[in-house]
Amino acid sequence: MRRLSDGVEAALHCMLLLTGLDEGMVLPGKSLAEFHGVSESYLLKHMRALAARQLVEAAPGPRGGYRLARAPAEITLLDIVEAIDGSGPAFTCREIRRRAPGASTDPCAYKADCFIKTRMLSAEAVWRDALRRQSLADLVADGESMIGQTNRQAIAAFLKAEQR
Amino acid sequence: MRRLSDGVEAALHCMLLLTGLDEGMVLPGKSLAEFHGVSESYLLKHMRALAARQLVEAAPGPRGGYRLARAPAEITLLDIVEAIDGSGPAFTCREIRRRAPGASTDPCAYKADCFIKTRMLSAEAVWRDALRRQSLADLVADGESMIGQTNRQAIAAFLKAEQR
Ligand code: FES
Ligand code: FES
Repeated sequence: MRRLSDGVEAALHCMLLLTGLDEGMVLPGKSLAEFHGVSESYLLKHMRALAARQLVEAAPGPRGGYRLARAPAEITLLDIVEAIDGSGPAFTCREIRRRAPGASTDPCAYKADCFIKTRMLSAEAVWRDALRRQSLADLVADGESMIGQTNRQAIAAFLKAEQR
Repeated sequence: MRRLSDGVEAALHCMLLLTGLDEGMVLPGKSLAEFHGVSESYLLKHMRALAARQLVEAAPGPRGGYRLARAPAEITLLDIVEAIDGSGPAFTCREIRRRAPGASTDPCAYKADCFIKTRMLSAEAVWRDALRRQSLADLVADGESMIGQTNRQAIAAFLKAEQR
């Protein structure tokens, strides 16, 4: 399959980290980048995309940073993937059928989608549904059971020190 | 979503056209390109990818061309998509978790996939399953009910004239 953007992994991990902030606090972009070992400019591009979709809020200024714009249960994995990689279909139909011999010159003949397109779009719709059925709250629950004790304490300490 | 290659549409339509050949006949690459109104070099790249996955057979030489390598019911939409766009996962995990504060220095700690990766891969697996459940025979059946009479006659005449 054509690969999703690398930024999807970074965005998902950033969103998960932001769930750990105390109420009313924000995390600077610099801290997000440092935590994930990536450059700030790389990450800010993706944070801007998440903000454009109202998944995070950006507080401006020297004491600024990012926080989730709504509760983790209200943010699906699809929201995050589409913020980074767009919400258009994966399958591209350029109406190649219209070039076939005997193709109609009446544009109304093509009001219905090509049946190949229909099948391709229905297949990717189940992918999108599977992403929509999972939320950031599910990742939080996974993390609680799967991130080791030392790692969790270090993450909590990082957030305490870096949040504003 | 990140777009699949343009070639997926062309490949699906080419495979559907090849189902119409008479037993033992092949269709030249030139005819396939002409039928779909695309350049032969563009199309041949995709036909080679289909041949590499044993979905079509290429008969060489001046009387050469392409035919399906197996029955339409034995060729899934997933086979065709993966021939063109690769069979790797759409989601890319670069193990960003290993950079977090408190991350373990013991590589064994990361033998299990990151839970974010697990969820992302399970979501795209349902997409792949949906493509695997549909075959070229389904497209043939769709075409029989959905391609107009004039169009179908023209396609049959084209194949009669061009097959070898
Ligand atoms: S015309 Fe685009 S998929 Fe058939
Ligand atoms: S480390 Fe790659 S998705 Fe979590």
